[in-house]
Formats: sequence, C-alpha cells, structure tokens
Amino acid sequence: MSKKNYIRPLDIKHGRIDMGHGAGGRSAAQLTEELFLAAFDNPFLRQGDDGASFPIPVGARMVMATDGHVVSPLFFPGGDVGALSVHGTVNDVAMLGATPLYLSASFILEEGFALSELKRIVDSMAAAAREAGVPIITGDTKVVERGKGDGVFISTTGVGVVAEGVHISGRNARAGDVLLLSGTIGDHGVAVMSKRASLEFETTMESDTAALHTLVAAMLAAAPGGVRVLRDPTRGGLATTLNEIAGQSGVGMVLEEAAIPVAPQVEAACELLGLDPLYVANEGKLVAICSPESAAAVLAAMQAHPLGAQAVQIGVVTEDAHHFVQMNTSFGGRRVVDWLSGEQLPRIC
Amino acid sequence: MSKKNYIRPLDIKHGRIDMGHGAGGRSAAQLTEELFLAAFDNPFLRQGDDGASFPIPVGARMVMATDGHVVSPLFFPGGDVGALSVHGTVNDVAMLGATPLYLSASFILEEGFALSELKRIVDSMAAAAREAGVPIITGDTKVVERGKGDGVFISTTGVGVVAEGVHISGRNARAGDVLLLSGTIGDHGVAVMSKRASLEFETTMESDTAALHTLVAAMLAAAPGGVRVLRDPTRGGLATTLNEIAGQSGVGMVLEEAAIPVAPQVEAACELLGLDPLYVANEGKLVAICSPESAAAVLAAMQAHPLGAQAVQIGVVTEDAHHFVQMNTSFGGRRVVDWLSGEQLPRIC
Repeated sequence: MSKKNYIRPLDIKHGRIDMGHGAGGRSAAQLTEELFLAAFDNPFLRQGDDGASFPIPVGARMVMATDGHVVSPLFFPGGDVGALSVHGTVNDVAMLGATPLYLSASFILEEGFALSELKRIVDSMAAAAREAGVPIITGDTKVVERGKGDGVFISTTGVGVVAEGVHISGRNARAGDVLLLSGTIGDHGVAVMSKRASLEFETTMESDTAALHTLVAAMLAAAPGGVRVLRDPTRGGLATTLNEIAGQSGVGMVLEEAAIPVAPQVEAACELLGLDPLYVANEGKLVAICSPESAAAVLAAMQAHPLGAQAVQIGVVTEDAHHFVQMNTSFGGRRVVDWLSGEQLPRIC
Repeated sequence: MSKKNYIRPLDIKHGRIDMGHGAGGRSAAQLTEELFLAAFDNPFLRQGDDGASFPIPVGARMVMATDGHVVSPLFFPGGDVGALSVHGTVNDVAMLGATPLYLSASFILEEGFALSELKRIVDSMAAAAREAGVPIITGDTKVVERGKGDGVFISTTGVGVVAEGVHISGRNARAGDVLLLSGTIGDHGVAVMSKRASLEFETTMESDTAALHTLVAAMLAAAPGGVRVLRDPTRGGLATTLNEIAGQSGVGMVLEEAAIPVAPQVEAACELLGLDPLYVANEGKLVAICSPESAAAVLAAMQAHPLGAQAVQIGVVTEDAHHFVQMNTSFGGRRVVDWLSGEQLPRIC
C-alpha cells in the first residue's frame, strides 16, 4: 500500500476531517490506512477489499445484530462512543446465546471533527474489540458537511454462532420462570447525563459499559437449556426491556423492588435529575429468565463472574393476559411498571 | 404485539420524527412496528429480538460488508437513499464472489424528519430487498436533535456465502489479465449532482443504482475460476477503483479510452460541471478482471444479462513496479490515470 505516495502523514494532532476524507480517493485511503487499519489491524481487514471473508462457523445457527451509536457527549465517565459501539453490538449478539465472532463498523463523520478525538475513539474501539476477542473485520467511512452531523456516529454490526441446544429468545419466557439481574441498574445513563449536565457529584459515577459475552458463556455452561431469555436493558432501561419480553412471550412479571440493586450515588443522582432508575439505560448489565430448576445454578455462575458479582433474583414470570409487568414496592404495595413513554434520556447510546 | 395499546396509529401523512422515536420506549416500538416491520416484514424480523438468528449457510466461506449511506439529496433521479443502501451493500458482498443472504439496517434519523419521507425511503428499501431476494433481518433506529443530522443516514451490513472454487479479491489480478466493464460510467454521480445543482438537461439522467449479484452469479457460472477480481466503482469512480486494485495486486493497468462507454448526456453534463467521468461514482456497474482464457466467456455472460448488456473489454493488466494505471487516449497518447485527489463529489452515496 506504500505506492500511494501520500505527500505527508495524517496530522493526527492538529488535523481535522474534511470532505475529501469521505470522497473515496487518496485522502480517504490515507485515513483508512493510517487511522483505522493501524488501530484495528487484523488479517481480515488486511484483505483490503470492500468486505471481508471468513470461515463458515461451526454450530447450530448464526445470529446478526446491528446498533447505531449517537451518544452525546462522545466521551463520558467510564467510556466513550467507541467502546460503547463494540460492547453494544457484542452484547446484542450474546443476548441471543451466541458467541460473537466478527464486527463491522460504519463511521459517519462530521466535517471539521478533530482527528485527535477520532483517534481516541478508534483506539478505544480497537481496545474494546481486542479485549472482547471480536475483531472488526470490515468498515466504511462517510463524511457529511459541518452542521449535518455531530462529530461521529458509529453503526456496528456483529455476527455470531449459537451452539447446539441453546435456544434463547424474548419469546421463550413461561409462567413460573425466574428473573435474574446481573447487577446495579442506571449506571450508564446517569454517567452520561451527569457529564452532559456538567453535574458535580461527590462520588464519580461511571458507565457500566462492558462486553457481556463471557458472562453469558458461563451462564449457559452452568445450566445448558435452562436459560430461556437474555437481554441487556439499554435504552428504556429495565422496565422497558421487561415489558418488551412480556409482550413477546405473552406473559406477565412480578418484580420485587427491594431486590433491584441501585448504587447509592445513582439513586441520589436520579432523585436530583428527576429520573426513575428503572427507565435509565445500562450498557453492561443483563436480565436472564431461567427455568425454576436452573435458576440457582445460573445465579451462582453469574455471581462467580466479575461482571455478575452483584447478580440477584428480582422477580418471577406470571400468567397475565394483559402482559403487565408489576412490582411489589418497598412500601408493601404493588404497581404496574409501564413502558417508557416519550423521551427521558435522549442520545444515551 | 397488540398489547402495547398505542393511543393512535402513527400519522404517516403529517407526522414527524421526535426524540421519543429514538428513546427505546413505547413510541420507538410503535415506529418499528408500524413503519419498519410493516415494510420489511419477514420471519427473521418477526423474531422480535435485538438481533436475528439464521441457519448456517452451506459453502466454502462467508463474507461480511458494510456501508454508510449519506447521499444528498435523499431522492434523486432513478433512486433514493433507501434503494441505494440495499444495492450498495448487496454489491459489496457480491464483489467478493458471494451470494448475498441477509442484510441489517441502522437508521440515524434527524428530529423533525417527515414520516412521509421516511416511509417512502423505507418502502423503497423494502422493494429493493425483495427484488434482490435479500431480506433485512434486523435493525436499529436512533434519533438525533434537529441540526445534528440530515434527514436520514442508513448504514447497511450484508452477509453472504462463497461457493467452493470461487476466489475473488482485489489482490488477485495478474499481468496479462483482461479488464471488463459492465456498462457506461458516471450515471449515478451525474444524476445526483444534476439534482443537487437543480440543473435542467434536455434528457433525463438517471442513477444506475442496481443490485449486481445475479450478474456476478452469471459470470461465475460462465467461467468457474476465471474471474479473479470484481469491484463496483462507486466513490472515486472507475479511476480510483482501478488504482486500488493495482495497489492491492501489485500490478499496472493500461486502459483504452475509446473503449470506455459514457452516455452522451453524461459526457455533456460532465463537461458542463467540470467533471471527469472516470472519477464519477457508479452504483450499478462492475469491473471484472479475468484470466485471458476466460475473458470471452465472461464477457458473453455479461452481455447476455440485462445489467451487462453494454459490457466491454476496457484494457489489460500489466507488470508495473509503480502500480500505475495508464490510458491510451482517444488522441493516440498515453497518460497516467491517478487516484481521485480531494473532494470531487461529496455525499454521492
């Protein structure tokens, strides 16, 4: 690739994205080579084609998941849009019980965006992908005029393979099943909101952004066939995720408010911001719905994993023709936990 | 899904995207259900999870390709961003010699975007996907504030399967190989530019946007093993695409200017706009590099296909330590055809 004779290397420190970086010519090739390939380097990307070729995986089925990432601000306590774009899609693949194998990334850059910030984001993506063991094998970059974008949007797509005997879907919950949650809720949303609102809290709140596929693998190994539903409660939070599953499976749910872990600083921030943690986004937590017989083994496997150390049972699946999610409150009452209505936290992921 | 009890159906005629459509709650679910699922409807999407599961394909290898689509204007003669987003990714998969199987779609919508325009685009995507026989099996929607986007950006990702004995890559060209082109160049870029510049020409110029996978299948069937490189000359045009391949394969090329077909109205528009058709984007054309023995059979197969009726041989691959693409001009000279430098036609795809 040395034959393109770039006049000078990219000026990462002071340079900015210009329309030429999206025009498909020499300057786009230079951005790809010196920024993206340098960070993501792997044999698939080095094929250098407009797509990548990989071996057919061995297993029972495959899965594909995609997510656009438009979080604002781009950098927040505990993460950034780059790490998030890897974790979000790895998690969507893992929530179908699959081993994530490969990622693609589509960048939409705004003219004038600093190359130094882009490099920070791309390096963070590369680190997240390496840590997860899921390479970014192909990608694309477009540039839009100043004022027609917002720095960078990243859409990632993942493919993965599901082993024989694993059947995970939001449609599989049954009355009598047990609801497990891998840890505290609301951390990601509150971290982003506090940064956006320039709030100063006494303790630092960090996003929980993390790749959950090794946690899922441990859970599936502990109780083959026992895990029926997995989902990461991102936008809309735990409440919306459970309502989705209740609708898909045609069941109800009853939660125990006292059992749902919320970090004290998140609880305090939510009170200040007027938010309900049940509706605040998470990026490193999962909900599992298991058969009653398998629940203890799955919970133990979660608690033995660093990303599930605070895992708890938070409720049960019930028969309910209305597919309501209800909650026994800490005050001894019971209320319906509805879907998120409208906009609570825009651009949280 | 009827249990969500939407207060009223989406007002497609007068409604606009608001931040709630991207918040993951009830209003996001309604947009997904009444707009995206209604248009793309297929059993994979109906799984209703944050990703889709599909059978492991039978073949030698798989491929994955992704493309962001930010074309401006969103609607142009002969197509729109929706059709383009399907064709572009189907083509990237096909250019690796693969049969495209499944697509994902990530939408980044701007607050205030008219639902009626979004529906036109989504219906056009759905029609393109149906026509290509490649279903959109999973997707995601985000919303950004007014002035932080530009109507709609669509990133699509495709997966496909490569049959035994097919080995296509930009790295495979060898000196002595033959360069084939499937038809006229410059149509897409000129159609978009003429719309953007509100130019009035006597004849209507239309984008060539099309899915090329059936053309590729016909070519591979005609000469198994004879096709070494396939690529669709999109951004940067034919000139940039050939330079990319020359660099990847470590070869030179010599083109015959007189052999390269350009529609008269495209030639006229290029003169008016100060463009060189060699650098103008195409969305329904391909370049093939074949072994000398197979070239006649491949060319005949192209010409027998509706999307290759005007296919021609445009040059040959040469040994060249500088990896230059050169052209014998219509005036009897020879010049170097360089990479596109900088920005010629921003946001053309």
